[in-house]
Amino acid sequence: MHAIVDHIQSVDLNAGEETHRYLDTLTKPPGSLGALEELAIQLSAITGELKPSVTPPAVVVFAADHGVADEGVSAFPQAVTAQMVANFANGGAAINVFARQIGAQVEIVDVGVASPLTLPGVTSAKVRYGTANMVLEDAMQCDQAIAAIDVGIAAVNRAKRAGAKCIMVGEMGIANTTASSAMLAVLTGESVASVVGAGTGINPQQQAYKVAVIERAIAARSADPQVPLEVLAKLGGLEIAAMTGAYLAAAAQRLPAIVDGFIATVAALTACRLCPAVRGYLIFGHRSQEPGHDVALKALEAKPLLDMGMRLGEGSGAALAYPLLQAATAMVAEMATFTDAGVSDKASP
Amino acid sequence: MHAIVDHIQSVDLNAGEETHRYLDTLTKPPGSLGALEELAIQLSAITGELKPSVTPPAVVVFAADHGVADEGVSAFPQAVTAQMVANFANGGAAINVFARQIGAQVEIVDVGVASPLTLPGVTSAKVRYGTANMVLEDAMQCDQAIAAIDVGIAAVNRAKRAGAKCIMVGEMGIANTTASSAMLAVLTGESVASVVGAGTGINPQQQAYKVAVIERAIAARSADPQVPLEVLAKLGGLEIAAMTGAYLAAAAQRLPAIVDGFIATVAALTACRLCPAVRGYLIFGHRSQEPGHDVALKALEAKPLLDMGMRLGEGSGAALAYPLLQAATAMVAEMATFTDAGVSDKASP
Repeated sequence: MHAIVDHIQSVDLNAGEETHRYLDTLTKPPGSLGALEELAIQLSAITGELKPSVTPPAVVVFAADHGVADEGVSAFPQAVTAQMVANFANGGAAINVFARQIGAQVEIVDVGVASPLTLPGVTSAKVRYGTANMVLEDAMQCDQAIAAIDVGIAAVNRAKRAGAKCIMVGEMGIANTTASSAMLAVLTGESVASVVGAGTGINPQQQAYKVAVIERAIAARSADPQVPLEVLAKLGGLEIAAMTGAYLAAAAQRLPAIVDGFIATVAALTACRLCPAVRGYLIFGHRSQEPGHDVALKALEAKPLLDMGMRLGEGSGAALAYPLLQAATAMVAEMATFTDAGVSDKASP
Repeated sequence: MHAIVDHIQSVDLNAGEETHRYLDTLTKPPGSLGALEELAIQLSAITGELKPSVTPPAVVVFAADHGVADEGVSAFPQAVTAQMVANFANGGAAINVFARQIGAQVEIVDVGVASPLTLPGVTSAKVRYGTANMVLEDAMQCDQAIAAIDVGIAAVNRAKRAGAKCIMVGEMGIANTTASSAMLAVLTGESVASVVGAGTGINPQQQAYKVAVIERAIAARSADPQVPLEVLAKLGGLEIAAMTGAYLAAAAQRLPAIVDGFIATVAALTACRLCPAVRGYLIFGHRSQEPGHDVALKALEAKPLLDMGMRLGEGSGAALAYPLLQAATAMVAEMATFTDAGVSDKASP
């Protein structure tokens, strides 16, 4: 992990500015394609190219379990993590469907499911069998968090070697909104109540209980908010650590990374706390219905592309946003300029 | 036109409800895909099918000129309409680029450009050489508005015969935000100032002048707000009429129509005033930066899919939203159910 953090460079703002100037020569009123133009500028800053490509994209889904599920914080039993990994492997989950739509390879990585898993199509990179219950003890040790980060780094490096030009990471882990909420409250100083939502579908009473569980865990662990790795190890999850590593690796490889929802954004925030230059490589796919997502987005000064009231995870919101990146790159690569098309510019009589 | 209005039936809400129930059996927390689930439900209501397809899509762009351009209301000269039609024919405009991305055929229809046009790849269906200046006289006669509506109907019927499963219409016409603003103010009773924006890029002083021009035209024409065809003829445009016809035809053919931005939404509102059952067939692609768009959307109780600060027209915002419809149909068609995948449902222990 430390080697890669040293390797990350800031995005190339000059390349972005060059693209901005070029966009104003294309046959449309200046700025009239709004956020799509901002996206084109950011993609140039990320890649250093005027006309970058984001094809093919790659999706990596990290799965792991959470000891805090013992507290009864989720609407679903812990066994669902492993069952959903099998569903991913069989191509039946939402992320499989959306990845096929955009022509993305999907790699499923077991970084810490609580049961033994040997499924064809699932990369085994288990750091441990789920985290410990953070109410009772640290979720994991620091060296385990680093090992899980390295799993994420390795996955992105594999995708890059396979030709990927854009990275989307997703997660599966029953109770991982609980871990993410705990991390976010500590990292931002916001109240637990303000970052906790319905997760996969609990009622308001269960939600109040979830807040209490997280508050107990935070008090018991007393992680230093200034040390992101400590927050991650004491209150986080193995898949959250892997996603953190994935964003670090995407930045190191100068690959655009589309960030999914709440859990992904907490991982992205962690990556940015470890290395602020990562921020420029992140594109935010959607605004989740989970209330903590707004807090995490605000901490990153991020405005997501989509706002569809979704709260599934798996990388689904990132995959749905991907065609907008394709459109942004096609706009730059294929639109005619005023001069080429013989269209009068605004300044003309 | 009148024959088709009689032919339009309301969407099939039972088919939508059946899809709603089916969505809750898929491997995701119920409702967790938010607006994508609502989209799937609407697509079933439109088509009457549990697993409809929206592929292939078709884009039709209607071009026409506006006599009110003589008042100097636009940032661009009128010649740009014809120049942009040539750009469309050559495949260099934004809508061409986005249509290629989604695999859509693009038909360009000249329904009233102010100059003679004989370009390969442009359908000639000119009703007249641009509208008259609505400050001085009615933009067009009622029979001309009906003829332009019929041009739109014919274009959608051609697309349907060619196999299209989803319709997007766009427009090109210098000064058409002026005409649309006038129509919208009359149709909704809102003030002109509240529906007028920067169009293709005028400054606040020019905007105040645009408001004054529109107020003069509305006073001089005194169109009856209860007679949408009169509002269209006196204050509208030939391409706006054609788009109105296109939405009527889409509804009659039970085809989903993705509505673009401000001008398209004013045409959609006109179609819904002519025949309220049209509303169920409309999916709103994006929220334009043009302030009148919010007024038009509110009048239709519509929530658009994208909100990207765009203000280009041409159908660009509809085309960018199209992949979300594809994702919605793929979700229904391809996701595994809890039973099939052996995943524990929320109710399970």
